[in-house]
Amino acid sequence: MEKEHIFKQYDAELNEIRTRLLEMGGKVEKMITDAMKALVDRDSDLARRIIAMDHEINHLEMDIDEKCLQVLARRQPAGRDLRFLTLALKIVTDLERIGDQCTSVAKRAVELNEEPPLKPYIDLPRMANWAGVMVKESLDAFVTGDEKLAIKVCRDDEFVDGLNDQIQRELLTFMIEDPTTISRALKISYISKYLERIADHATNVAEMVIFMIKGKDIRHTTPPTDPQ
Amino acid sequence: MEKEHIFKQYDAELNEIRTRLLEMGGKVEKMITDAMKALVDRDSDLARRIIAMDHEINHLEMDIDEKCLQVLARRQPAGRDLRFLTLALKIVTDLERIGDQCTSVAKRAVELNEEPPLKPYIDLPRMANWAGVMVKESLDAFVTGDEKLAIKVCRDDEFVDGLNDQIQRELLTFMIEDPTTISRALKISYISKYLERIADHATNVAEMVIFMIKGKDIRHTTPPTDPQ
Repeated sequence: MEKEHIFKQYDAELNEIRTRLLEMGGKVEKMITDAMKALVDRDSDLARRIIAMDHEINHLEMDIDEKCLQVLARRQPAGRDLRFLTLALKIVTDLERIGDQCTSVAKRAVELNEEPPLKPYIDLPRMANWAGVMVKESLDAFVTGDEKLAIKVCRDDEFVDGLNDQIQRELLTFMIEDPTTISRALKISYISKYLERIADHATNVAEMVIFMIKGKDIRHTTPPTDPQ
Repeated sequence: MEKEHIFKQYDAELNEIRTRLLEMGGKVEKMITDAMKALVDRDSDLARRIIAMDHEINHLEMDIDEKCLQVLARRQPAGRDLRFLTLALKIVTDLERIGDQCTSVAKRAVELNEEPPLKPYIDLPRMANWAGVMVKESLDAFVTGDEKLAIKVCRDDEFVDGLNDQIQRELLTFMIEDPTTISRALKISYISKYLERIADHATNVAEMVIFMIKGKDIRHTTPPTDPQ
């Protein structure tokens, strides 16, 4: 009876970590969507709210870290649970850095909103959408242990890399044809890179999930993609 | 006697992780120095050797990860040792990503070596030097538990950020004055950002070290710096 009680409490603690991670993931996904909205709608107030949200994400990271450490110390887990907890520790760091990238997008959006628009944004919102879905799916794959979904995320990263390359090339032609666009084009170029890095973080998470499930490391078995 | 033997073995295991982390750090520092050398000396062969080294760094990450998991599972550490091991897991990820940034510097160096030089590199080697020292000192602070050194690393990051801003502004004037420089200036701009991100990784490590020593989280207590 006593033992059963302890097991139930342990399960509840692991579930709590799962829930908090998904909650953090949900907030980060919303930051991606909102940052793009702030850019496309030229809404600097929204951008400033995103920048302010970064602190909340940072605190979620520290909070989840602490919870993982408590469970590790109290329950001394082994096997799958140990792998789950150590990966949770790594994954929150990726989520926190995705939050950082979103605040960077928002900062560039505020700057761009002070100048006349350079061009309509078509590929950037597509990229942001893909990156957001990748973040969501990588976390879903983590909490449900869905290997197929994790593999899908890794594959989607190539598409996002391709979109980024396309955007960089297009911006380069703008800059060469009309040097007065350089400062704005550079900011858009940075935003594209921030999004590309968000997708990279999601891919890192997905690779670690595959490792957790298979107990086999697929990280770094393919040639490294180029972090821009 | 038996117990003493187990303690000795446990200590040896923790020391082995410390040694491997320093070894990985040393390789990564060399990658930073060599990547800058490949750029300044226009040495594409050296750049290609750095790109090839990335695999080695990736394997070191997986190897240290596995060692940490084994100790966690076998020894069920608590307190300081638990904090050490969970931080080691996070730190190897930062080191691996520093390796990624170095290969990116090397790739841009190969591209730049195919075109006429734009300008002598003055601030970039300085930045690379600072970033390399920050990486070294953050790891030294980790293995020796030196809080003062970790605080120094966090402070040095501001200087690197300042150097990056200066480089970006200078490159912008090049691009505006002569559009034929844009493509090369962009590549140099990326390299400056890669170095700035290496310094950010070292700062992340240093912040975690302070957390380990104080048991108090100083991460994210200052306004976030802007990852470019």
